[in-house]
Amino acid sequence: MIGRLNHVAIAVPDLEAAAESYRGALGARVGPPRDEPAHGVTVVFVELPNTKVELLHPLGADSPVAGFLERNPAGGVHHVCYEVPDVAEAARKLEAEGMRVLGPPEVGAHGRPVIFLHPKDMQGTLTELEEA
Amino acid sequence: MIGRLNHVAIAVPDLEAAAESYRGALGARVGPPRDEPAHGVTVVFVELPNTKVELLHPLGADSPVAGFLERNPAGGVHHVCYEVPDVAEAARKLEAEGMRVLGPPEVGAHGRPVIFLHPKDMQGTLTELEEA
Repeated sequence: MIGRLNHVAIAVPDLEAAAESYRGALGARVGPPRDEPAHGVTVVFVELPNTKVELLHPLGADSPVAGFLERNPAGGVHHVCYEVPDVAEAARKLEAEGMRVLGPPEVGAHGRPVIFLHPKDMQGTLTELEEA
Repeated sequence: MIGRLNHVAIAVPDLEAAAESYRGALGARVGPPRDEPAHGVTVVFVELPNTKVELLHPLGADSPVAGFLERNPAGGVHHVCYEVPDVAEAARKLEAEGMRVLGPPEVGAHGRPVIFLHPKDMQGTLTELEEA
């Protein structure tokens, strides 16, 4: 069912410093910061040849990343995202397997339907599935 | 400098259960467990079309993953690995930028030289660089 690793999302306390360490020290192709108010984050994409890293920083009062940074002030991997052909079908199948699917499919940061799987069912790793 | 995302490594408390959730519920191609005594881990590879996920479980008394699982009993992302053309050159460049490179280049789990960057210099994310 799962296909490509779409992205690894890393929550960072200082977006500019994080972007600079990927751009400068690591020499990666790094895009400009992009506010995504609907998702409560500002995102910087690090474009790699086979996938991307998303640097996430809280935006607004109700950001899903704020609590994570309170628990992990230095930052850390927030979630991992895999592509699936059909998110609604994936949700049905995974719930039938007893896994907790967080919320109904919603339109994610890339304009495609996504779901999240509870970290407790995924070895402590918040896991996003995005319709490819 | 950095190229492909070589792998995401997830430390897991129960390797068989983790492998089964990727193989069964998520429908991924999952290899057999492989002991790597030199690195203190047993590894299961989840092969994705563009990269891989490595499920890590402690092996032996002095595993680098054991402390992580004590702090994160449910498991979690242990490190992220990017490919570089020359690990020794990368280490020199990154140290010149003031980043902490953990240990001299050593031969990693894939038989190639690797270094690790300190999580404090990488937004809380332990980062491996592997010579491609």
